[in-house]
Amino acid sequence: MASKSTENRNPAQSADGRAFEIVKNGVESIEIGAEDVSDPQDGKSLSKKAAKKEAAKAERLQKRQMAAAAAAATVVEESDPLAGNYGDLPLEAVQSKEISGRKWTRVGSLMDELKDQQILVRGRAHAIRGVSSKMAFLVVREAGYTVQCVLNVNPGVVSKGMVKFVTGLSKESIVDVEGIVTVPNIAITGASQQVEIHVRKVYCVSKSQPTLPINLEDAARSEKEFEKAEQTGEHVVRVGQDTRLNYRVLDLRTPANQGIFRVQSYVSMLFRQFLISEGFVELHTPKLIAGASEGGSSVFKLDYKGQPACLAQSPQLHKQMAICADFGRVFEIGPVFRAEDSFTHRHLCEFTGLDLEMEIKEHYFEVLDILDKLFITIFDGLNEHCKKELHAINQQYPFEPLKYLRKTLRLTFQEGVQMLKEAGIEVDPLGDFNTETERKLGGLVREKYDTDFYILHRYPLAVRPFYTMPCIDDPLYSNSFDVFIRGEEIISGAQRVHEPEFLTKRAKELGIDVNTISTYIDSFRWGAVPHGGLGVGLERVVMLFCALNNIRKTSLFPRDPQRLAP
Amino acid sequence: MASKSTENRNPAQSADGRAFEIVKNGVESIEIGAEDVSDPQDGKSLSKKAAKKEAAKAERLQKRQMAAAAAAATVVEESDPLAGNYGDLPLEAVQSKEISGRKWTRVGSLMDELKDQQILVRGRAHAIRGVSSKMAFLVVREAGYTVQCVLNVNPGVVSKGMVKFVTGLSKESIVDVEGIVTVPNIAITGASQQVEIHVRKVYCVSKSQPTLPINLEDAARSEKEFEKAEQTGEHVVRVGQDTRLNYRVLDLRTPANQGIFRVQSYVSMLFRQFLISEGFVELHTPKLIAGASEGGSSVFKLDYKGQPACLAQSPQLHKQMAICADFGRVFEIGPVFRAEDSFTHRHLCEFTGLDLEMEIKEHYFEVLDILDKLFITIFDGLNEHCKKELHAINQQYPFEPLKYLRKTLRLTFQEGVQMLKEAGIEVDPLGDFNTETERKLGGLVREKYDTDFYILHRYPLAVRPFYTMPCIDDPLYSNSFDVFIRGEEIISGAQRVHEPEFLTKRAKELGIDVNTISTYIDSFRWGAVPHGGLGVGLERVVMLFCALNNIRKTSLFPRDPQRLAP
Repeated sequence: MASKSTENRNPAQSADGRAFEIVKNGVESIEIGAEDVSDPQDGKSLSKKAAKKEAAKAERLQKRQMAAAAAAATVVEESDPLAGNYGDLPLEAVQSKEISGRKWTRVGSLMDELKDQQILVRGRAHAIRGVSSKMAFLVVREAGYTVQCVLNVNPGVVSKGMVKFVTGLSKESIVDVEGIVTVPNIAITGASQQVEIHVRKVYCVSKSQPTLPINLEDAARSEKEFEKAEQTGEHVVRVGQDTRLNYRVLDLRTPANQGIFRVQSYVSMLFRQFLISEGFVELHTPKLIAGASEGGSSVFKLDYKGQPACLAQSPQLHKQMAICADFGRVFEIGPVFRAEDSFTHRHLCEFTGLDLEMEIKEHYFEVLDILDKLFITIFDGLNEHCKKELHAINQQYPFEPLKYLRKTLRLTFQEGVQMLKEAGIEVDPLGDFNTETERKLGGLVREKYDTDFYILHRYPLAVRPFYTMPCIDDPLYSNSFDVFIRGEEIISGAQRVHEPEFLTKRAKELGIDVNTISTYIDSFRWGAVPHGGLGVGLERVVMLFCALNNIRKTSLFPRDPQRLAP
Repeated sequence: MASKSTENRNPAQSADGRAFEIVKNGVESIEIGAEDVSDPQDGKSLSKKAAKKEAAKAERLQKRQMAAAAAAATVVEESDPLAGNYGDLPLEAVQSKEISGRKWTRVGSLMDELKDQQILVRGRAHAIRGVSSKMAFLVVREAGYTVQCVLNVNPGVVSKGMVKFVTGLSKESIVDVEGIVTVPNIAITGASQQVEIHVRKVYCVSKSQPTLPINLEDAARSEKEFEKAEQTGEHVVRVGQDTRLNYRVLDLRTPANQGIFRVQSYVSMLFRQFLISEGFVELHTPKLIAGASEGGSSVFKLDYKGQPACLAQSPQLHKQMAICADFGRVFEIGPVFRAEDSFTHRHLCEFTGLDLEMEIKEHYFEVLDILDKLFITIFDGLNEHCKKELHAINQQYPFEPLKYLRKTLRLTFQEGVQMLKEAGIEVDPLGDFNTETERKLGGLVREKYDTDFYILHRYPLAVRPFYTMPCIDDPLYSNSFDVFIRGEEIISGAQRVHEPEFLTKRAKELGIDVNTISTYIDSFRWGAVPHGGLGVGLERVVMLFCALNNIRKTSLFPRDPQRLAP
């Protein structure tokens, strides 16, 4: 594995001037790091506000790194007969040179059953502790799981050089560790796995900069730890949201973030699986469209081969067209673009829309029935299958489990207005609720019905899009609904107007230039089934299921009015 | 159901001037249709070339429609005691007025077992044939299935007025049919279901324009029928690709198109299901990015709140960043934007990318192993579960089933060059194949190995993106691959460069401004596992699995350099 041969050296790489031999210290990567972080160009892709901060920080970082580099540049022990058992791997070793047939064991599957077996793991150098020149501990992390590796100098097995190499590793470097599994008598507190690896070989596959822009330990610190530190007077670093996002690749490595995005992946899976089992067809509608996809909020405009175009604000029009095209029940999971200047904890300029649209026979309650079963399936599925992930999130950001009923509560908008009124809050019965009122109503509903999840339907027509079907018994209201988790909206939906002349009239009334949506309106002229549907924000579902305080926490690489990077 | 009461009439709708009472003829919708199709605004959103054609066509259409309207405007029979059993439903009836508890039976599930039972179906008036003033046939279509409905005048059951109403229906209108299931002694050739419905009630839920821009019968005609017509001298209409796309909502209703998009939905499902079972996490990476996502082909540019931005040409950079963020194995299904001026049968400006990226231990063959199992799972799944859909596609566009091996063939690029050479075709061993050469090689591979699906790997480095890992034994070649179906590329992938300095060097060599990708390159400075991945074009997979001749057939609402609508 740790081949020193250079006869196959890649000329292109040699030209690069890089040494491919096993390097015994981290100086090279330190220099790389210093050069990089101070690169003034780096700030260009960051948000403007963040860029200034970063410049100052980079300077401090560089100073620290230069000091670290000087300290690490110690003389290398060259006479070690075990030298081949440790060191930096050359790139060649992982450049698809050969298939060795070796098996890597997952850190998460290291259990008592493997006692006394020789195993090989690849992971990150999560924590390194040199006890003496003869002993060191290395905690290796992989996919959120950690295992403690022990190095004890032992002639012919572990050399001082190996201990030195390990203590010189920079955190977050990728390492291959080969060793024997042992089961200690006492519980291991510093790692998730309750076995240890007695190291025989250890190689660095990819070196990290020795000083990181954010420390994983800081990024993963829980509120409880902050409270404790405050009591004890210990100084601990709190990593701000903007800094996290600037170095998102590091931030995402925390157990909570690993959990958040695995939960998010699971939500999509449950959404799809349920809908496919109910006869829905998955669609991919165009994101590049002529004209605005809905009236109201602003859109991102662009030039499309000389034609004015914009990014779809939702798959609304095309998913309805798919219903007119006989697909019966359809869904889509895809990006949704909003150019609004909303600087809130729950708005993004790009998010993932979970959309569905379905034929209805006579009532929009048919959509609510699907919605109801769908979300109970999702919540049950998360609670059942994402225990580890939810626990990891809860450790850093404590939250109470979501309360939801087996059959989702349905209140009319007017009932909501009445509940607020009884609580002393007067709202316009023909207006929309603001965020604060929604939260307040969420609290009242929880108190009265013991649920964090409920449907509010029959919204005032005036606050809904033009394609919303009015109520038959009161045209001031509509066959529409919003759905709330913990007092915040996650879903919006309705029965749609499927009659083309009425649709045209409604569009005109709301000031929409019907010429820009003529192909949409035309779709209803060739026979259209009554239908309804809804749109869900994936990031909001995860945010609110876990009671997180910011939607940027549930978007992998968030986009808001000030952020277009990384 | 067909309530005539008007006391609940919605004032907003009355103001519209529309009559909500049961209307006994189709004149109203005919006028709507005539007005709409001749609307000169309609052409605005069509491609320029298509717009001219449409103008001429619309004029012809209008003339035909006016003639049809005149013919249909016959005097209505008002004294029919059965008048409540048929007619046009008012919008009110499907405006979420009530939940009647009635059950609709799916046309596709109409079987012998239902003999003598009274059932209710909703579907389209697919075909209408008046035999006499006392008898008519109505074929109802739902989700690609059809059933024959019979009307025979019978006192107290079926009136002449009902027969007249049905014969006056315009094709593609949505109808509710209530009747008794009977099983005829002879096979039914004009419908998919082998039972008949003896009609008791029939209502029109949504009227279609009487003259459609394209007839479903024409749009669904198979090559075999065209050949037959040529032999018999019969005149049949062939609907061109552009016309189909201009009226995509109608075009999509053909059995073949219903099949294509159900197959497409199934491909995504199998892709996800397999990857999730292999431990992959589903991601959603941003489509709005600063700078170009890869060098080379042109991008759609836009203004992002005062910052220059563009649409992602692939999730490449962000999915690799997710690997650096410890997600281990990731995939994404989402739109991919290419502003290239490619006017071919296989290029689109927006398509659906199926992307995956994964940690590898030592060799890019680990990616090929996943790819191999993934695609065999997809092909097997389609053949097993989409028989009906594939049959429907095959009926209109005949194709041979895809030949693929249980273990996918892997040839090196150099082996491909050699095979071509032996067949008398000289190609540059350090260049790329063109479409013609790829097809030719596909033919040679099929001849020699009896497979339509194979992997070609170790492409020349010069023809691959900057992030591609060179081969260790020959830096002119790379650890990359393409995958072919029926001689056309559907997948591109490789091991990636995970070493930041080498990555920077490669980017610079290919003329990429590294400042625009600094956050990407920085991701590799904090420890990066060796990794590789691939991207698949969903539309291409479906196109080539079914040997279709144009990618516009497998994109729901295609976008090419000339088309931004519907």
